[in-house]
Amino acid sequence: MNIEMIHAAARRLEGHARVTPLLNAPLLDRIAGRRVLVKAECLQWTGSFKYRGAWAAVSALRAAKGVIAYSSGNHAQGVALAARQHGLPAVIVMPKDAPAVKIANTRAYGAEVVLYDRTQQDRDVIGEGLAAARGLVLVRPYDEPEVIAGQGSVGLEILQQFQGDAEVLACCGGGGLSSGIALACEGRMRTRTVEPAGFDDMARSLAAGERLRNAALAGSVCDAILTPCPGEITFPILQRLAGPGLVVSDDQALQAMVLAFQHLRIVLEPGGAVALAAALFDESLGDTVIAVASGGNVDPAVFAGAMARFG
Amino acid sequence: MNIEMIHAAARRLEGHARVTPLLNAPLLDRIAGRRVLVKAECLQWTGSFKYRGAWAAVSALRAAKGVIAYSSGNHAQGVALAARQHGLPAVIVMPKDAPAVKIANTRAYGAEVVLYDRTQQDRDVIGEGLAAARGLVLVRPYDEPEVIAGQGSVGLEILQQFQGDAEVLACCGGGGLSSGIALACEGRMRTRTVEPAGFDDMARSLAAGERLRNAALAGSVCDAILTPCPGEITFPILQRLAGPGLVVSDDQALQAMVLAFQHLRIVLEPGGAVALAAALFDESLGDTVIAVASGGNVDPAVFAGAMARFG
Repeated sequence: MNIEMIHAAARRLEGHARVTPLLNAPLLDRIAGRRVLVKAECLQWTGSFKYRGAWAAVSALRAAKGVIAYSSGNHAQGVALAARQHGLPAVIVMPKDAPAVKIANTRAYGAEVVLYDRTQQDRDVIGEGLAAARGLVLVRPYDEPEVIAGQGSVGLEILQQFQGDAEVLACCGGGGLSSGIALACEGRMRTRTVEPAGFDDMARSLAAGERLRNAALAGSVCDAILTPCPGEITFPILQRLAGPGLVVSDDQALQAMVLAFQHLRIVLEPGGAVALAAALFDESLGDTVIAVASGGNVDPAVFAGAMARFG
Repeated sequence: MNIEMIHAAARRLEGHARVTPLLNAPLLDRIAGRRVLVKAECLQWTGSFKYRGAWAAVSALRAAKGVIAYSSGNHAQGVALAARQHGLPAVIVMPKDAPAVKIANTRAYGAEVVLYDRTQQDRDVIGEGLAAARGLVLVRPYDEPEVIAGQGSVGLEILQQFQGDAEVLACCGGGGLSSGIALACEGRMRTRTVEPAGFDDMARSLAAGERLRNAALAGSVCDAILTPCPGEITFPILQRLAGPGLVVSDDQALQAMVLAFQHLRIVLEPGGAVALAAALFDESLGDTVIAVASGGNVDPAVFAGAMARFG
């Protein structure tokens, strides 16, 4: 995993991934008390940066008969669209209690969705059976060099769009986005991971110097970035280049989502708003920060509740 | 008023106005039954294309001591920010019952807001008195060549971003945006105005060949684009180059606002969503349309109501 892989992925992504704008608003800067630039990856295809990693991984395949992924969310949609654009079939294995809109979107992007019962069936057994029978290649959501390379293209774009002294804040689940950005920006800008409180495995792992697990797998509104522990590939990169990790509350993430709606006119999901939340509310940060923000599928009830409280 | 003025305005705007992205989403195309490209002017400074016209007008001034505008909405914020960026004072005359958020935003962009009582005071008397006493130049919202030239830069960008056969749909109040785009795209793409039902003065005027007035001045949720009648300068341009005018219902505008939120992750106000509404729901249109969409300040209650009905 190195910077050359990121440059190679960025070249393959050219003309396919959108170069997303770096937005800012004077009224948001006033609230933050600093200059806040927002890399609006919610405007990326499928609404999240996950499309970059998926496209980079699929475009790196040679002679695959198709791809398979386990995901109920943004990675699923990224893999589905990237596979279709490469003329490859995609199978996405999803729990049957996943939100209907995510299942529908994944199908609309052309994937075959295979549903399983979380309480009765083993996802890996289903996936491995399908992969073996049909010759499908598994695309992992973050612990996968080509995926990290694709997400790293966000960092290369930031370096082109902003010259100056700043820290880059990235929402962090398994660390694919943040490790890619950290490699892309090495020596130019420091990268900081941002996680929701209670699911701060990366922040604690960076502090401890070893990969620690979260106590729970669910229980935050930031569902898009709840992963059990840092990735095997992503953690050493972040240990070398990033940190200390930042943590925000669910309420701060929801408030950042509302402020992005009001002042930047973009739609983020709570998990995609944690970096902006840190940019707005973390007093330890410096004068200028760049927050990577992502969209996904926002639950209308969650959004309405946040608007009622913070709008 | 000619294409050269638009090119000149676009050159002055370079590095100041944002080049906004042309977004699309496969799931939105499926709903529309055609290819829909959205020029996301909600991502422009101050949230609307009005900043372009304001900046173009202010940057064309020579030896002005300041500017003045009558507006309770997006033009006010555009003029306020453009004036501040030119180091000029701006006075915005607003009715004192204007939404608090719009007054606050206009002040936050650096303008002096002068409030008046609609029922007791004459806006023009107040404005002319201030202009004479302080040497301020009036910036009109649409019937002003430099403003039309600035809005026309949207059309030049569209021509650079999309090569192919398409109609451009523009939300239309007094016709500043649509006439600027029509001139910019003359001979390349046809421009169509879009208005809310009951306030279709431009559509009726284009059909009649003369400037007709709306029966009412208020009563649509699309408040940003309710003007009494087509402009003196804008109408002949649109008569020569645009039409027939399109009309959408308030409900279609609200539904377009919700679909933009869900599928494009951008925030539009109802008046800024009428062109997208026509793109989605008007069966008379062709295979590919480009809808200009604008943001402004969305009323949280209106948004919540639309999400509850259409989300």
